[in-house]
Amino acid sequence: MTPLEYLAQTEKQRFDELFKFISFPSVSGQPERKADVAACGQWLTAHLASIGFKAQLMPTGGHPVVYAEYLTDKKAPTILYYGHYDVQPPEPFELWTTPPFEAQIRDGYIYARGACDDKGQTFTHIKGLEAVLKATGSLPINVKLLIEGEEESHSANLPKFLKANKDMLKADIVVVSDTGQFNEKTPAVTFGLRGIASTEVFIDGPDRDVHSGSFGGTIANPINTLCWMVAQLHDKNGKVAVPGFYAGVKPPSKWERTQFKKLPFNESAYKKSIGVSGLQGEKGFSTLERAWSRPTLDVNGITGGYQGEGAKTIIAGKASCKITMRLVPGQKPMDICNKLERYLKKIAPKSVKVKVDKHGGARAVQVPIEGPWLEAASRAVAAGFGKKPVFIKEGGSIPVVVEFKETLGLDTLLIGFGLSTDNIHSPNERFRVIDFERGCKTATFLPFELAKVKK
Amino acid sequence: MTPLEYLAQTEKQRFDELFKFISFPSVSGQPERKADVAACGQWLTAHLASIGFKAQLMPTGGHPVVYAEYLTDKKAPTILYYGHYDVQPPEPFELWTTPPFEAQIRDGYIYARGACDDKGQTFTHIKGLEAVLKATGSLPINVKLLIEGEEESHSANLPKFLKANKDMLKADIVVVSDTGQFNEKTPAVTFGLRGIASTEVFIDGPDRDVHSGSFGGTIANPINTLCWMVAQLHDKNGKVAVPGFYAGVKPPSKWERTQFKKLPFNESAYKKSIGVSGLQGEKGFSTLERAWSRPTLDVNGITGGYQGEGAKTIIAGKASCKITMRLVPGQKPMDICNKLERYLKKIAPKSVKVKVDKHGGARAVQVPIEGPWLEAASRAVAAGFGKKPVFIKEGGSIPVVVEFKETLGLDTLLIGFGLSTDNIHSPNERFRVIDFERGCKTATFLPFELAKVKK
Repeated sequence: MTPLEYLAQTEKQRFDELFKFISFPSVSGQPERKADVAACGQWLTAHLASIGFKAQLMPTGGHPVVYAEYLTDKKAPTILYYGHYDVQPPEPFELWTTPPFEAQIRDGYIYARGACDDKGQTFTHIKGLEAVLKATGSLPINVKLLIEGEEESHSANLPKFLKANKDMLKADIVVVSDTGQFNEKTPAVTFGLRGIASTEVFIDGPDRDVHSGSFGGTIANPINTLCWMVAQLHDKNGKVAVPGFYAGVKPPSKWERTQFKKLPFNESAYKKSIGVSGLQGEKGFSTLERAWSRPTLDVNGITGGYQGEGAKTIIAGKASCKITMRLVPGQKPMDICNKLERYLKKIAPKSVKVKVDKHGGARAVQVPIEGPWLEAASRAVAAGFGKKPVFIKEGGSIPVVVEFKETLGLDTLLIGFGLSTDNIHSPNERFRVIDFERGCKTATFLPFELAKVKK
Repeated sequence: MTPLEYLAQTEKQRFDELFKFISFPSVSGQPERKADVAACGQWLTAHLASIGFKAQLMPTGGHPVVYAEYLTDKKAPTILYYGHYDVQPPEPFELWTTPPFEAQIRDGYIYARGACDDKGQTFTHIKGLEAVLKATGSLPINVKLLIEGEEESHSANLPKFLKANKDMLKADIVVVSDTGQFNEKTPAVTFGLRGIASTEVFIDGPDRDVHSGSFGGTIANPINTLCWMVAQLHDKNGKVAVPGFYAGVKPPSKWERTQFKKLPFNESAYKKSIGVSGLQGEKGFSTLERAWSRPTLDVNGITGGYQGEGAKTIIAGKASCKITMRLVPGQKPMDICNKLERYLKKIAPKSVKVKVDKHGGARAVQVPIEGPWLEAASRAVAAGFGKKPVFIKEGGSIPVVVEFKETLGLDTLLIGFGLSTDNIHSPNERFRVIDFERGCKTATFLPFELAKVKK
């Protein structure tokens, strides 16, 4: 029996188990669900043990971590699989067609909270590894499974857990399935994620709101001033104008540009998907390069003065905005925050006070494209999907991936089976049945492909 | 008996009457106070009749207008006195030291809602005219009193009332006491008010908030775009950069600049009063010129994106701000709104939609400084205060004054007895006893001084 035959034979059981996994309302962000999160972790631990893993539920300062091992041969590569068994809150319930924790298949989709993010994707690897184990009696690699219960709560306790268990978690590379395919016809391996640096900027003018009739024209208006300062953050070519912002940033490599050019990117579909009539960005780069390979700066929110109905003739005493910057390799979050602060304080008119709260963030992630790992992952996806994957990056951040690099020294293979239309974090979350199946298949090939990589 | 002797002899009665006038909670903006507003108007009408005026309470679409006449000699000038008997809401009650509608004298101040704005100031003229009538048996001018009950509700029905009663309201000039002295030691006659033009600007980008990781760098961010557009509204010399904004605007006249230079303006006290460390404005003009004689543009409120605690990594679908412009003679509110709209639409990137709501506003007011009216008013104030008044302008608008000009063709003399520290529109509104008294005295001299003006 091959692993694929095992998958086929156990299809009904596999879905029953996935639906059971989904049925726990393991919402890590809701304190009243604490027992449900724990019950989910316990079930998962028992399930992994029943397959043949040495599994345990390990306490943290918050929700527990499920950790399981199958160690077979010291000479074989050791792969750390990461996933999470907690989910986003399901609210608002009334927008769900069927109850969020009762998985249902409709029109080729599994509908449920966690169907994709990340119970469904995590389960592909568990089932793929099970299939290899049952069909061959062993695994060609050493496997360590780290499935946390707090990813949707900012992985609050994971960094400490990684530091405290460095030896246990020793591995050659990490595998994460928490990203997506390029589109519904194009599987993908993700080789980079942008980082993030987060700040909030406060402008203080008069010590209260003052009458704009009396004071209009004689003092710096904090809102106008903030707008002017924000306008100085980009130059006319769409580049970020903060001095030193691009220090250490390399342009996209030839290989990277080639990968992006191969992609079936449809600009008009892209515009239509968010309802904009045009695109805009840094001069000299394509849309995908701008989204994935270039650092950016965006105001995420701004507030100041009167925001109610009608007019109120005031000059506001203060104004503020939230600014995040997306980072690429070579940029350090706190260094970028410091540069922004220095620049804003330098350009501000003397008659206002400027305060910048610097929250730091996460560095960008790039999988080494020259090593054999990316190729191994690519071959496994090609076998599982019957189609060669494309190499993509993502514009967002997965901070835990940075932790793996910084704490454990490990690179991460990002093999995502989801789609951008899967409604993760929204009502009616879903996961295509066919993608779940192809994910499970990919997961049976992946151990063999990774085993070929010379340590 | 002279009018001043009459005032002295009737001092107790005068305060009793003022306190009675104040005791009506005539809050025009609160529908539940409708009967109180009406009762106040009835009392005032009866009071004016008791003094010797032909008085009536005239209905409008909202609260009634108190109208009273004393016509003496067709050859004498006819003066239209304007005031209002309605008041701002008193809330929050808990911040008042004594109940807002029970006037109390403490430390030389009358404390009550309406003590200054505008029951107290209106009453100075009623009592001054009464003193002249009682002391001399007549008035040297024809008097028409128009005391409305909706000033604090944007004088919603007054323009219609003026149009409907043009003949009745025929006069040579209007007298309004709803402004202030220059400071507590310096009485003033105000010879100009800035106008106002009011707009709201909306920027639409993507059809919903989108992920700033995925789309940061590829589309126009509506908040950044709005900030950039606001930044284009001023040039580096602090001038408003909207094309045509200054068309028809004349620099302050030599006479005006001379008046301002004479004023005991203390820049450091000005800064301290609102807690700013520096001043900022249009290059080439003094602070008072900037506040009173130059048109300006201020954002009064701005909103967009995420404004709660922490960070939310979105590019907002929209952003908006409220912009008002202070106008000077030569500028028309709707024309200025149109110019702003044209400019914003021209400079906006093509990938966002720009909408400008244009609310128009009120033109600036300037009392002819060459005619004899301003001098007559000045002599009356000098006699009443024992000190020559200064000539000032105010940066704010009194739209009703524009109505008098546009509907009745009348200029307005602005003779204010209040102080900027009188807490009008705030808890613990007050009016100095000495300013009420000097106001009443001024009001006895004013008819004689105005009577000297040749028609």
